[in-house]
Formats: sequence, structure tokens, C-alpha cells
Amino acid sequence: MCSPEVAKVVRERAARDGFSRRNFLKFGGMTAAGLAVASALPMRLARAQAMNSVVDLSHVLSPDGPTYLPNEGPIRETVVKVNPDGFYIQRWTIGEHTGTHVDIPAHFVDGAETVDVYDVGLLVSPAVVIDISEKAAAEPNATVEVADIEAWEAANGEIPAGALVFMYSGWDAKWNDVPAFRGDPGDGSLNFPGFGAEASTFLVEQRDIHGIGVDTLSLDPGNSSTFDTHVTICSAGKYGIEGVANLSAIMGKSATVVVGVPRYEAGSGGPARVLALVEG
Amino acid sequence: MCSPEVAKVVRERAARDGFSRRNFLKFGGMTAAGLAVASALPMRLARAQAMNSVVDLSHVLSPDGPTYLPNEGPIRETVVKVNPDGFYIQRWTIGEHTGTHVDIPAHFVDGAETVDVYDVGLLVSPAVVIDISEKAAAEPNATVEVADIEAWEAANGEIPAGALVFMYSGWDAKWNDVPAFRGDPGDGSLNFPGFGAEASTFLVEQRDIHGIGVDTLSLDPGNSSTFDTHVTICSAGKYGIEGVANLSAIMGKSATVVVGVPRYEAGSGGPARVLALVEG
Repeated sequence: MCSPEVAKVVRERAARDGFSRRNFLKFGGMTAAGLAVASALPMRLARAQAMNSVVDLSHVLSPDGPTYLPNEGPIRETVVKVNPDGFYIQRWTIGEHTGTHVDIPAHFVDGAETVDVYDVGLLVSPAVVIDISEKAAAEPNATVEVADIEAWEAANGEIPAGALVFMYSGWDAKWNDVPAFRGDPGDGSLNFPGFGAEASTFLVEQRDIHGIGVDTLSLDPGNSSTFDTHVTICSAGKYGIEGVANLSAIMGKSATVVVGVPRYEAGSGGPARVLALVEG
Repeated sequence: MCSPEVAKVVRERAARDGFSRRNFLKFGGMTAAGLAVASALPMRLARAQAMNSVVDLSHVLSPDGPTYLPNEGPIRETVVKVNPDGFYIQRWTIGEHTGTHVDIPAHFVDGAETVDVYDVGLLVSPAVVIDISEKAAAEPNATVEVADIEAWEAANGEIPAGALVFMYSGWDAKWNDVPAFRGDPGDGSLNFPGFGAEASTFLVEQRDIHGIGVDTLSLDPGNSSTFDTHVTICSAGKYGIEGVANLSAIMGKSATVVVGVPRYEAGSGGPARVLALVEG
């Protein structure tokens, strides 16, 4: 896929059609209502040394969790129980963009790869965590800027090939306080940190990444109406992860992240288990 | 959890209450109608060397896939599309035991751990693949027996601590032929391979495993009405994976399997992405 051309087409259509959160809102109350088997990993993983702990980067998937739209959470029902039925099963009704979840290129680009056919090699990646928690504490719609990436690289060296680059804003601590996590002061607006447009373009064009992740509800900051980072990431064939947990537990460590997103048929992404295998 | 006692209680209740597939059948047409963050890994992973490819052990999650009961498949709906809405999202209605999925202790043991609180360290494991495809080709309800495990150990050494032990029966090749995968000759019976009761007891009591996996619809063979392996595995606090794909691609190789099962709240397990990181 030629990413600059795709991004241009998506952006032009967005400008023409009023590509905004209103499009989400018109679908509010959503839930109230032979592929390649193996994929080569970048050689750097051959240098992996001592993976000796697992960190869970996933929140519990729950009807009570925060969602981009209000009342968009899953429905959870008990189907059978051990007493008296002998075994226990639940049924879920759930949108693909709920809880800790993945955005795959088809989420924003018509005809792009869906999650069931997405290259599995891209789901295993060295983690980079960029800490913007200090400015996010002062300004909810703070963004990862190119300067933040440059500061990380000055301390750690260039972002490794095939990296999954996370924004750590400290927002995951608010997960169980839905209004605080959404940053809605009561007027329906959303206010939380995300990747800035220039930073996501820099990562796609100047670095060789697998994807990005955020500890908030959207790859773009809450006050975005143009979804620049979504467009840039999806148009480049990369993926995003939203609602990531516990990034502070891997910050400064060498970790390989495995993105366990089920192969939802024709999926635009979906709820996932994201695990970090931490070395040392 | 004291596994022999739990297993005894579950078995007694099963004997008393007629614990059989009839209990499943009465719920047919199901879909038609603060936790520990990090977990230490066993030391053996510190010896991991060159993980340089990823093998997808997961089938596509689809309404058309085989299920234990007929008509138990998920419902997949398009909510919004890139044209004209600007982005693409699907909604799923899905039981926890659909597609490539995990069985967690609470599936068969009242009060046992659910998937959202299950130890993440158990989700990362060295793979052992026991090949019973030859006898399964001759007898659909063939089982993994203690002798099969002993034969594997004679060739490979003792099953490593923390292993995820898979049955390879060759059944995954039938995945897209639902009647063949279910082994229903037309009379409603199910016929496919699984773990024998003695083999699962051996693994739980004589070896130190994380769980087991099968390339069929159930940990027990299709003709089981007592679900001995389910009871043994769940009572011991272990887990099972059903509907595993592509095991032949990792057979004989050194692989670490990551079980990407989302943290479904209070979940009995659920649809998962199962990935093998293969060395060498």
C-alpha cells in the first residue's frame, strides 16, 4: 500500500465529508441496540536474552469500562452456570473498539487489511514507552510531539526496527473512573492525551515501526476532530492499540510485546490481550 | 485449590446430576437467541535463544466456523463503514467457547479463577506437541494416552516445567468442513479425538504443566459424556485451548506459546489469539 497516497485520499474525503466525531455520535448506543501462517520476525528478536516475567498491558473487559462514546460498552450475559448446569459460559455483545483493543488498517482505510489476515509477525514487537505524564497532568489534551521522541532517542538510542511505540500519559490510573478517563467535564466533550499528527507522521516516515499504543481512549487526543494519527497509522498499514494498561511497569525495561487480538473475521481490530515479556 | 478434592466433588455431582452433553443441548442456539500485574516466568524461559518466527495457532473467528453445538456460532454485524461513515466497525454476539478459545478453571469449577484474574505467567509456555494423527485417521474418537506421552518423552526428554501440551490429531485440516470437523455422521453424535482421562490425570499429577490444547472441538473426545479431562484440568487450576490451528508447523521445534485471551470480566475463558514464537 502506498501510504502517502492513501493518507491523502482519506484526508481529502474527510475534509469533504466532515470527518468528525459526529460520525461516531450518529451511531451512539451501538451495543444498546488461507493466509500466511508464519511470519519472520526481525532479526533483533534473535538477540532476546532473558525473558523472565510477564506484564499484563490489558484492562479487564467489562460493561463498566470507559468507552469513546457513552453507553458503548459491551453486554455480558450468563448463559449457563456450574450450578445447576454443570459448566459456566457467558455470552458477549461487543463492538470491536471496546476495552483494551486494536485498530487495524481497515478501521480507517477502505479495502485495507482486516485483523484476520494481518501479518502475525507485526504482532510481536520490542516496546518503546514515551512518557508524557508530566505535561498530561497539566494539559489533558497533551500530545506526543516529535521533540518527545527525540528526547527518548537521546537517552535510549534510535527507536528499534519493528517497534511498538507507546504513549504513557498516566491515564490508565483513571480507568475505573469513567468520567475522568473520558475527560468529559459534563458538556460531552472529550479531553485526554494522544499522539500528535507530526509525531505519528515522523514515526511512519522516519522510523520503521509496527504500530503505536496509548493508555487513553484514542490514538488522537480527545479534542481531535480530524483523527490525523488514526489516518496516518492506518494508511501506512500499521496498527494502534487503545486503552493500554500498566505501561509504567515496563518503562525503562527491555520488553517484547505480544498483541493477542483474536482473528475476528473481516475485523477492523478488536478487544485483545496485550502481554509484555520483560527481560532481565 | 486442592485439585484431587475438587475433582472428586465435581465428578460426584456429575454422576448424581447426569452430567452430559444433554446439558449443553438444552442451551442450544445460544447465540441465536486488582489483580497481579506481573508474573514471574519459569526460569527455563531465561534460556530462550533465537525466537525468529511467529506461527499463528488460531483459526479465523467466524459465524461459519464449527461449534460444539450446531448453530452456536457468533453473530457478526457491520455497524459503520469507511464509506460513507469515515471508519469501519463490526459488532459481535459471541459465546465464550467459540472458535480458537480457552477454557479457564471457572468453566467447570464453581468459584474457581475466571479469565480476568488468571495468572498471566501461565499464559506463556514452552510448547509440547503430541502427534496422534495416525491413530486418529483410523478412529475418530482416538485419545491421547499415557503411552503417547511416554513415547514423546522417550524421544524428547521429560515434558518441561510449565509446558502447554498439545494434541495434534490432524483435525485442523477439516476446520472449513463443519460436518467433518464435528464428526457428526448425521445422527447428532460427535466424533473427534481428545485427551484420555488417564493422560490428563498423568499430566496434572505427574508433570508440572500450565495447560493443554487440542485441534478439535473439545479437550475430551467427541464421544465423551463425562468430560473427564475438562474436570481434571479445570479442577487442577490449569487451562485448556480448543480449536488450535497449525500445530504441524511447530511440531519438533522449540517454541514459546503466548495465549492471548482477552480479560473477559468473570469469563469462563473465551476466544483468543494463540501465537507461537519459534526458535531457530
